[in-house]
Amino acid sequence: MQEIRLASRPSGWPTADNFELVELPTPEPGPGQVLVRNQFMSVDPYMRGRMNDVESYVAPFQLGKPLDGAAVGEVVASNAADVPVGATVLHGLGWRDYAVLDAAHVRAVDPAAAPTPSAYLGLLGMTGLTAYVGLLDIAQFREGDTVFVSGAAGAVGSVAGQVAKLRGAKRVIGSAGSAEKVRYLVDELGFDAAFNYKDAPVRDQLREAAPDGIDVYFDNVGGDHLEAAISSLNKYGRVALCGAIAQYNDTAPPAAPRNLALAIGKELTLRGFIVSNHNKRMPDFVAEVGAWLRAGQISAQETVVEGLAGAPEAFLGLLRGENTGKMVIKL
Amino acid sequence: MQEIRLASRPSGWPTADNFELVELPTPEPGPGQVLVRNQFMSVDPYMRGRMNDVESYVAPFQLGKPLDGAAVGEVVASNAADVPVGATVLHGLGWRDYAVLDAAHVRAVDPAAAPTPSAYLGLLGMTGLTAYVGLLDIAQFREGDTVFVSGAAGAVGSVAGQVAKLRGAKRVIGSAGSAEKVRYLVDELGFDAAFNYKDAPVRDQLREAAPDGIDVYFDNVGGDHLEAAISSLNKYGRVALCGAIAQYNDTAPPAAPRNLALAIGKELTLRGFIVSNHNKRMPDFVAEVGAWLRAGQISAQETVVEGLAGAPEAFLGLLRGENTGKMVIKL
Repeated sequence: MQEIRLASRPSGWPTADNFELVELPTPEPGPGQVLVRNQFMSVDPYMRGRMNDVESYVAPFQLGKPLDGAAVGEVVASNAADVPVGATVLHGLGWRDYAVLDAAHVRAVDPAAAPTPSAYLGLLGMTGLTAYVGLLDIAQFREGDTVFVSGAAGAVGSVAGQVAKLRGAKRVIGSAGSAEKVRYLVDELGFDAAFNYKDAPVRDQLREAAPDGIDVYFDNVGGDHLEAAISSLNKYGRVALCGAIAQYNDTAPPAAPRNLALAIGKELTLRGFIVSNHNKRMPDFVAEVGAWLRAGQISAQETVVEGLAGAPEAFLGLLRGENTGKMVIKL
Repeated sequence: MQEIRLASRPSGWPTADNFELVELPTPEPGPGQVLVRNQFMSVDPYMRGRMNDVESYVAPFQLGKPLDGAAVGEVVASNAADVPVGATVLHGLGWRDYAVLDAAHVRAVDPAAAPTPSAYLGLLGMTGLTAYVGLLDIAQFREGDTVFVSGAAGAVGSVAGQVAKLRGAKRVIGSAGSAEKVRYLVDELGFDAAFNYKDAPVRDQLREAAPDGIDVYFDNVGGDHLEAAISSLNKYGRVALCGAIAQYNDTAPPAAPRNLALAIGKELTLRGFIVSNHNKRMPDFVAEVGAWLRAGQISAQETVVEGLAGAPEAFLGLLRGENTGKMVIKL
């Protein structure tokens, strides 16, 4: 088997040198354990924070040890009666092609209920749930709201925008980093407007796309996107603080948002969240989004990279915004 | 009668030249109106925003017209049966020594229920209600919380800190701008700790005063105070965004808070509010705080300036932090 280890910690932007691919004998499952052949693994922006040696809401990756993260695969050897050989399971030991886990640490999923097993890493998995919880519970989305989503062509943003439309948003606006992604948002996902944040200041483009202001901002980006959203938010507006990918590789603190004091007079609510504390919403999420998926009402483009050796470069590409939809590695 | 008019709009810090004292004949009340001899008028930080010609949650003051704001006085002539001569009333036409108002625009208050009528401008009035609503409803204070209040010797902060103590806070910390105010907070108001924000960085002093972090931050100041609070807030911490006096006179936007992205992992909630949308809480507030006042459990120091002509200078002193407790003008 092969696994990818953290070779060194980055300062600023990570590089391929921070990762090391290692060959090992494929392990045997012990009592109560299963051996999983991983079919897909996930790369996600939050992993950048785990490369730093700082305490956060997830433990940092350890130097010289394999990275980890969500993966889906097939059980190929089992010492656990309730997880038979052939089962498709979701678990937390990505960044390797084979994984041994206690049966309690895997969750069986139904491969027939998804277009591809990788959907359990994206639309039907953590990033989909993040979009669902962030929009509905954190930002308290209500029918008729005008919604702005940054990083809208990404795994979380693309679902947040679609859920807003399906739940009756008046208008959904997205930002992304290329003309192609902007077309994808409008033509394929049904966003009412979208813009390339590299073309002109976010504040100007957002005002043009939302002349009557916005009621909800789903923030995946931070920085000047957040500042622009605060400026465009209407009275009683709500912000779900989900990510700040614009600043994950910054070595100096960001200057924005400089207009947070506007939150007083507008009576805004800004609320941070991490999805792992909202797993109780998984059944509602799977029921609602699963039904939209079966009805063809929600789309889940993925950016698929082949082979474990390509995972570090795929992860770096994700941080540079090279993905559309969920970025996954096919093993 | 005399009134104070807006002579010009300030850029940055206001000066005495922005105000003009004008003599007029004392007006007569029309049908359904009363003539009030103002006893006290209020100066408040929010009035700084009204000196700018920008739309906000309160209309700007008009050039060449009298300023306005909360005042309390005695009815000296009345054409309204329900508001007799001799009644003490609260109303919105401060910055003058006599005011004519429709009876519907005054609220009778009980002078015997307060140590001085000016209490209806502070502890039992708008600033007290602001503290009450901000702490309990906006920041969702819970017994056992550790609370940090900035501008803690001011009209709002001093009440917010005392209400937190009386409602069972584990620890209440205040910041203020002089050694005398720091002593006042600890020795007279019962704060557990207080510091002078001019002595050292707020972040360092707050960490020392709250080694186990804070659960609630009541923000009257913005800027580096808000940044320090975000840094010290514990998981699920809550911020009431009430004011940003540190930046009301700034002509460039503030750099802070540069660490707002910490709100994601800590799952913080930041919520702005203005008290005028929370008047429905007035009965609860008057019942609870009034009882504490009668029992001698809550203190309400005032900084009293004599005479209408001194009002502009008193207002400027308020913006410089020269008051302890509510700043009022005795007419």
